[in-house]
Amino acid sequence: MNNNSTRNHPLDQAVALESLGPGRWRGHTSKGYANMVGPFGGTTGATLLNAVLSHEELLGEPVSLTVNFTAPVADGNFDVIARPVRTNRSSQHWWVEMTQNDEVVTFATAVTARRRETWESTELAFPQVPQASDLERFALEGRPPWTHNYDMRFVDGALLGEPNPDEPSLSRVWIRDEPARPLDFVSLSALCDAFFPRIFIRRSKLVPIGTVSLTTYFHADQQQLQETGNDHILGSARSNHFGKGFFDQSAEMWSRNGLLLATTHQVVYFKE
Amino acid sequence: MNNNSTRNHPLDQAVALESLGPGRWRGHTSKGYANMVGPFGGTTGATLLNAVLSHEELLGEPVSLTVNFTAPVADGNFDVIARPVRTNRSSQHWWVEMTQNDEVVTFATAVTARRRETWESTELAFPQVPQASDLERFALEGRPPWTHNYDMRFVDGALLGEPNPDEPSLSRVWIRDEPARPLDFVSLSALCDAFFPRIFIRRSKLVPIGTVSLTTYFHADQQQLQETGNDHILGSARSNHFGKGFFDQSAEMWSRNGLLLATTHQVVYFKE
Repeated sequence: MNNNSTRNHPLDQAVALESLGPGRWRGHTSKGYANMVGPFGGTTGATLLNAVLSHEELLGEPVSLTVNFTAPVADGNFDVIARPVRTNRSSQHWWVEMTQNDEVVTFATAVTARRRETWESTELAFPQVPQASDLERFALEGRPPWTHNYDMRFVDGALLGEPNPDEPSLSRVWIRDEPARPLDFVSLSALCDAFFPRIFIRRSKLVPIGTVSLTTYFHADQQQLQETGNDHILGSARSNHFGKGFFDQSAEMWSRNGLLLATTHQVVYFKE
Repeated sequence: MNNNSTRNHPLDQAVALESLGPGRWRGHTSKGYANMVGPFGGTTGATLLNAVLSHEELLGEPVSLTVNFTAPVADGNFDVIARPVRTNRSSQHWWVEMTQNDEVVTFATAVTARRRETWESTELAFPQVPQASDLERFALEGRPPWTHNYDMRFVDGALLGEPNPDEPSLSRVWIRDEPARPLDFVSLSALCDAFFPRIFIRRSKLVPIGTVSLTTYFHADQQQLQETGNDHILGSARSNHFGKGFFDQSAEMWSRNGLLLATTHQVVYFKE
């Protein structure tokens, strides 16, 4: 997925994998993408997707990615294996795992497929919101290191700000990599996990949280992502339900010209 | 999960597993849950969840389930293995696979956890719709066998009916097992896959489709499911986007008194 123009971006360094043989790689966590505990989950998931995209038997482009965060990832090296569980004529199902000291700290399943032209319709309406250039960049001083790798411009639902009165867990935010980087599946998968946890927005405070499982459906193909360039994309995230120690979060990612790039869902542990 | 009152229900026969040793089972497809090709995916996923729930090392209750349909399941026997990939203090991550002739035909990952009381809020509004008793049972003559195991009463978005003008892929349907069966995680997971594919609703015609990946988040615990009894539950399903050979589908499952039981998402292959 990487090309020369993006290879030196901090994100590409964070997801970089050194081959240890067919379907096996070694990587290491990046200080720049550190979170409160361990690395930002978005880069961990993007690293697993990068393994799939680097696999010599890869067929097609990502359609679906589910990442399960099983244990805190320690700072330092990790190993990754990716294995096509099943290869069909035009689609492929993947298992990917990240281990440290032979313990699985994160795993993923993915579907890749050869996309083809079909009937097409986006039923969801593109939100009517101000452009990124009309909004201020959100100040991230004092926030974990990973946040400084993103330029976020909130329409509503900013961290510790005023919740949207109609939907108090809703955030709409123009976001891009900082420094700017051309959009691809790797960066889009990380952007899908770059929303602050909905409980922070809904309760206007920080509480202990951890994503346990994150699923992303990719609606755009590689060419459409390339055409988005390094522009901001619009993320719109909300929760349906909080309770009994977990909440869900659903979000849409839109290009500036109204193309639905991805929809993404996660379930998050919380203490409150 | 099963008890004597439900064990003889056709669903329980469809998901039944005979132990072959720790973490290994054999089952067989049920003619009553046959679909156009192979069995109804809802029972296949429910069978994999049943393996997790039957595992001697199980910790807690289901929070998340992702099922990947890798190949058509042939009529007849299948083997299932379930393995806790990681067990934490209060949560557990699972790998489950169904094989036929040593080929993986379906696999799943799941998260189970000990749920506990926390701050609670359902942000999504419970739809204002007529009660199940005020609606007619949808006629399923000529539809695949599995549909006859459900009592469906459509508010809108019925199969090959009049699409909802505001959201043409939306269906709202009161649904329960037929014959009635007390709700539990197994039956709820199958109900989450019992919506007709959104492309059938949106285009008012049948086209070739196949779910490739299905994720369900369970918001209710076992006691809340028990309290729902064998009542109809309200499903509300829609698509965000159709294109390049795939569409997504998101749905909510509500109890009659407005409890959000589960939210569920899938990505589906289609030809059109």
